[in-house]
Amino acid sequence: MSAFQEYSSRDPENFLQKVKDLVSEKKLLSERFDKGKKVVEFAHPDQLELKLGLDIQPNSATTLELEDICQKVVKYSVKTGAPTFYNQLYHAVDTYGLAGSWLSDALNTNNHTFEVAPVFIVTERSVIQYIMNKFGFKTGDGIFSPGGSISNMYGMVLARHKRFPDIKQRGLLGSEKPLVVYTSEESHYSVVKGANWLGLGTDNVIKVKTDDRGRLVPAELERAVEQSKCEGKIPFFLNATAGSTVMGAYDDLEALSVICQKHEIWLHVDACWGGSAILSKRHRHLLKGSDQADSIAWNPHKMLGAPLQCSPFIVRHPGLLHEANCAAATYLFQQDKFYDVSYDTGDKSVQCGRKVDAFKLWFMLKARGENYFETLIDNTFEQASYLHKLVESTPGFRPAFTFGFNCTNVCFEYLPLRFRDQAETSEWKDELSKIPPKIKETMIKEGSLMIGYQPLPFKNKKNFFRMVLHCVPPPTKEDMEHIVQEIDRCGRNL
Amino acid sequence: MSAFQEYSSRDPENFLQKVKDLVSEKKLLSERFDKGKKVVEFAHPDQLELKLGLDIQPNSATTLELEDICQKVVKYSVKTGAPTFYNQLYHAVDTYGLAGSWLSDALNTNNHTFEVAPVFIVTERSVIQYIMNKFGFKTGDGIFSPGGSISNMYGMVLARHKRFPDIKQRGLLGSEKPLVVYTSEESHYSVVKGANWLGLGTDNVIKVKTDDRGRLVPAELERAVEQSKCEGKIPFFLNATAGSTVMGAYDDLEALSVICQKHEIWLHVDACWGGSAILSKRHRHLLKGSDQADSIAWNPHKMLGAPLQCSPFIVRHPGLLHEANCAAATYLFQQDKFYDVSYDTGDKSVQCGRKVDAFKLWFMLKARGENYFETLIDNTFEQASYLHKLVESTPGFRPAFTFGFNCTNVCFEYLPLRFRDQAETSEWKDELSKIPPKIKETMIKEGSLMIGYQPLPFKNKKNFFRMVLHCVPPPTKEDMEHIVQEIDRCGRNL
Repeated sequence: MSAFQEYSSRDPENFLQKVKDLVSEKKLLSERFDKGKKVVEFAHPDQLELKLGLDIQPNSATTLELEDICQKVVKYSVKTGAPTFYNQLYHAVDTYGLAGSWLSDALNTNNHTFEVAPVFIVTERSVIQYIMNKFGFKTGDGIFSPGGSISNMYGMVLARHKRFPDIKQRGLLGSEKPLVVYTSEESHYSVVKGANWLGLGTDNVIKVKTDDRGRLVPAELERAVEQSKCEGKIPFFLNATAGSTVMGAYDDLEALSVICQKHEIWLHVDACWGGSAILSKRHRHLLKGSDQADSIAWNPHKMLGAPLQCSPFIVRHPGLLHEANCAAATYLFQQDKFYDVSYDTGDKSVQCGRKVDAFKLWFMLKARGENYFETLIDNTFEQASYLHKLVESTPGFRPAFTFGFNCTNVCFEYLPLRFRDQAETSEWKDELSKIPPKIKETMIKEGSLMIGYQPLPFKNKKNFFRMVLHCVPPPTKEDMEHIVQEIDRCGRNL
Repeated sequence: MSAFQEYSSRDPENFLQKVKDLVSEKKLLSERFDKGKKVVEFAHPDQLELKLGLDIQPNSATTLELEDICQKVVKYSVKTGAPTFYNQLYHAVDTYGLAGSWLSDALNTNNHTFEVAPVFIVTERSVIQYIMNKFGFKTGDGIFSPGGSISNMYGMVLARHKRFPDIKQRGLLGSEKPLVVYTSEESHYSVVKGANWLGLGTDNVIKVKTDDRGRLVPAELERAVEQSKCEGKIPFFLNATAGSTVMGAYDDLEALSVICQKHEIWLHVDACWGGSAILSKRHRHLLKGSDQADSIAWNPHKMLGAPLQCSPFIVRHPGLLHEANCAAATYLFQQDKFYDVSYDTGDKSVQCGRKVDAFKLWFMLKARGENYFETLIDNTFEQASYLHKLVESTPGFRPAFTFGFNCTNVCFEYLPLRFRDQAETSEWKDELSKIPPKIKETMIKEGSLMIGYQPLPFKNKKNFFRMVLHCVPPPTKEDMEHIVQEIDRCGRNL
């Protein structure tokens, strides 16, 4: 026993102060990030493994060693809060969101019964109600899940349970016909992964064609549904996308809801990326029809800057989350408690232990107020528009798509000098597709900028750049100009 | 734009310092928790909603208001770090684990590609290797999941994919026969929830009888497997439990692995609760045979005190995680990168975005060293033994089971004075089963102690208390004595 008594004399709580100091001193948080700093200090995996000293020893490390590790962790981590990080759909963390995260982590609470998580249970309930109101749900329920992929699975499970409640007990083998899921070719791959996990089978995910903006074509959906019926299958679930990953497309929820109602199909909206527009009077029209959805997944940890993971899922049918998921464990959800046990939310979840995520979102909304986030979102859309104009007007750049841009995704191609004014043969295209990886390698090794690139085979597109603009830190015109200049600098003579 | 420029002048980073100060000042962390303080300041849900002021306003809250909220959050939250909190399988957070959590939250990194999460990807890889070594896996792979329930689902999905790889595409409807899952009647309810989600059906989860210690009876498993075969079903998955939720039972992994091999059944071990014993030379024998498992789920956020959520899942078959889960999204997992893309782990996961959890565990292991945790675990088992002796020797108390205790779960009954020396009729038993809720209500309202109680119908048991001992803060003899005294004080005259 003396070993740990001795050890605690090291006063580990002081270490939290060191972490706080490191975060401040290195300006990890967005608001103060020094634009001159590198977005990443790149090291290959094997180099990094050596630098960090990953092996676990029988004895404790010294405080100095631990501080050195923390310094290295910061040094070699990607500065996701930098105004030069646009590599993914998330970005910097909102500082009040982070404060909420630190506090709830210190309280180390499991969000499954009111008994152990009183504050966090009422916070989750309240913020779920707030989100339902925003998306236009008059009744319903919701839960925070560990991410958008699992939220999309919640949607599929609830849809399945509402229509075929027997499957919970009997399993899918008992079904007479395969259940079919529809989603656009532009949609997130989690729909396919979910169909695999849930036993539906990836063959039963029909990828519906999209229009030139990347939106699911309603007429194509109708056709696909009719075809499934002819093949003896059961259309049961549509995953509509509000802000697709690459093109930023918002599917037409109003048109799709009509088709879904007609064919008794559950309308789920994957608004993980684009859902934040709901907080802006100017942009919420993109989600028109969301009140008709059966369920919606939103990730405020993406555009809005809530700390990762922060994934509310809402459903328009009260009681269904519980019905579809309950297992009524007697050691946890006793009914003979002295408080209102409807506050014990754990049995609505597919998880048992569940991290507190709602509080982070609630606290940042409370701290900043709605107007602040509306201003942020409007600014982000404006900067996307400005970047798009730069891409149109700067030599060597051109938009990847004729329609312009959706959401805050600005997709573009860059042509080094030798590619300009050439016939665009298939050899030319093949050669050009090697350019984004090269530019990216240079940028990452220099630590100057991180932007994603990818092909889009179903639009017959080879590698192009995709800028995804976030709210935190608020992007500026100078940031947009830097992007264009930096790509041009790295790519001009390739 | 001025709205958020103005706002950032409030210097939100200072708020992180306030959180740090609040955590220290209120002694939220285990090592310094003042034993005189309440484990909870109870308020009913409706009261709490009023106190917190949950509504979101258009405008920002003042810093004073936010500080007040944080004070209330701490005041009304359960002090899970108190030496009087034993209500769940988790407890206080290890301070170095928390430091790792705070640092990785500030870096706000998504653990899915080396590109964006270099430090955390190599840390996860290294700590997974460490865990595989501990459990005796010579080869394999692993991933951190958002909790034990999802880890158990990983096990089922991998088992299904290894034996019936076509199901990924075709779905379960294509199977000829139902797939059957076996688990003990003592096992965690997530196995049932998982079977629902994965489309197997809860009817196809066979709950196998346990012996007097709560261990799955191997002969009963054999019988159940034979019966499933007679019924034309396919036995494919056994969930063995290493440390069951209520009784703390460790199934006999060696005996079960023989049966599994004979019948081509995947052996998954749910070691979420009891897996921490693997770090102790004295107690690791409880997990003998773990090297024969196909997959193992462990939650260091339970007994070991890692911050919630921290759930490594390991599998003995290299490549299978990737094969079973990959969807090869072209916008994320490009193969034309300039570094070793085998470090991009995202496609092994059912998630896309994934919180950094591995770093917290790695950092606390690094900071404290293995010996420290071994000492902690040994102490926890010793204190469980001491509590069991107290229960045997203190008037009014008696063990719930004749065998004593498993793991660090001490189950016992308490008899108020009027129940003692009475004939134990069924009326007497009914009346006694109302006592634990009453004692618990008193204890919670006074904030003196939190312990779980539950019935165990399949062992013909009505409500009894269940003490689950954790490593952090290290339990002491005085703590154990306090528990017995406190229950006696609250219950003696009921």
